[in-house]
Amino acid sequence: MKRPVIYISDSTGITAETLGHSLLTQFSDLEYETFTLRFINTVEKATQAAEVIQRFSQENGVRPIVFSTLVEDSLQQIIIKCDCLFIDFMQTFIQPLEQELATPAHREVGHSHGMTEMKAYQERMSAVNYALQCDDGIGVQHYDKADVIMLGVSRSGKTPSCVYLAMHFGIFAANYPLVEGDIERLVLPESLKKYREKLFGLTITPERLHQIRSERRPNSEYASLHQCQYELRQVEALYRQFGIDYLNVTRMSVEEIATSIMIRADLKQHA
Amino acid sequence: MKRPVIYISDSTGITAETLGHSLLTQFSDLEYETFTLRFINTVEKATQAAEVIQRFSQENGVRPIVFSTLVEDSLQQIIIKCDCLFIDFMQTFIQPLEQELATPAHREVGHSHGMTEMKAYQERMSAVNYALQCDDGIGVQHYDKADVIMLGVSRSGKTPSCVYLAMHFGIFAANYPLVEGDIERLVLPESLKKYREKLFGLTITPERLHQIRSERRPNSEYASLHQCQYELRQVEALYRQFGIDYLNVTRMSVEEIATSIMIRADLKQHA
Repeated sequence: MKRPVIYISDSTGITAETLGHSLLTQFSDLEYETFTLRFINTVEKATQAAEVIQRFSQENGVRPIVFSTLVEDSLQQIIIKCDCLFIDFMQTFIQPLEQELATPAHREVGHSHGMTEMKAYQERMSAVNYALQCDDGIGVQHYDKADVIMLGVSRSGKTPSCVYLAMHFGIFAANYPLVEGDIERLVLPESLKKYREKLFGLTITPERLHQIRSERRPNSEYASLHQCQYELRQVEALYRQFGIDYLNVTRMSVEEIATSIMIRADLKQHA
Repeated sequence: MKRPVIYISDSTGITAETLGHSLLTQFSDLEYETFTLRFINTVEKATQAAEVIQRFSQENGVRPIVFSTLVEDSLQQIIIKCDCLFIDFMQTFIQPLEQELATPAHREVGHSHGMTEMKAYQERMSAVNYALQCDDGIGVQHYDKADVIMLGVSRSGKTPSCVYLAMHFGIFAANYPLVEGDIERLVLPESLKKYREKLFGLTITPERLHQIRSERRPNSEYASLHQCQYELRQVEALYRQFGIDYLNVTRMSVEEIATSIMIRADLKQHA
């Protein structure tokens, strides 16, 4: 039977989901049914949320786990009375921080994903627009503004990685697909030559690339293992020839790719 | 003087950054200098990390705050000895969860942002590709697959919102810019007609739109307050006429917009 897991927040719920999910991966043999109660910022909404939690408890015959980032004590008190394991991500740490910082916490509804840091926020949004503007080899005229220019063969994960770097870190990330002509002749495309210090390569195993491309165009020459092997061998030779640092992303998630590139390319977060 | 804040993780550091940042917004009158130590997954790296933390402590003359998601006790023990306020996001909750779930935690290096849930992960990446494929009115032939089709005038925040819904929730979100012709005649573009139940509108105050557009094209007719007022008045009339639910995003971050649309459009997370 699946254990009910409820994320509750006075704001977006993203923080509660992120840490709650991290904790649950430490108990990955069990199964969960997850549910998020967002924007629980009034007594009325908290009372309704408590009813939802009670219903989960009764219908499942097992206590829900409630991961909370509620800040206001009056709201938290309503939830804490439910039949659940209440895991408190905010209050637990507020008190030691108050002591260390010798400052009382605001204890107001969270704005951690709000617009409090307007400049950093606008930078992130500009970076997202940039990632789209410079996706897949377009927008080369804007490469002066790039923090990093990602290279790789088709379907090696460039686009999601650039979008993640933009959304999360405000990094201006362009991406350029290396195509047959470039990799056959082992030359750097003309438009990339003056940006060598910004280039970062992705690679992947031929087997995984074959699998990904096959989902898109089954039984095509493009997806064949032979073609994948050829392109990757050439592209890695090209990276080495031009001294371009690169990463094998076969077993990596987009979060892992993005954070690894932050380190390897020594990028500084704008946000 | 800025208080040093160090996020430390055996993996990407994203979880530590997310909750740490949430907590610090409760003390937003103070200033911080933040730094993330990612992929600290060996004794050697932890020892180096401890040196970095000690250096921060000495150079600043004030104890750093260390937000940790380290799971392995041997690594944590190395960091905990530093002169810092050590805030432990994992171990603090592992024990009550072990008791509730009657299962020992793996206590292994985290994979919360890894590829453990392959199917959900691939769905998110497909959604990101979809958001790019169906950005700004392109890809209307793929609207059958959309979970939501976002409408709005130019620069009202559609693109980042769609990308966020895709990256974070695996939602297939297309976006369509309503242009002069559509809003003048108060008609729904032909390609949207059969998807009325998927449409969701964004709006914003004329003043804010004027400000955003002015950064892009200063002193243009496009950016003029008059033009912004006209477009928004028309587009809101169009939403009402066709019974399209809509959201005023003037004071909202992309996280708030995305999570609000999840609720209002009753979208189910694929990831």
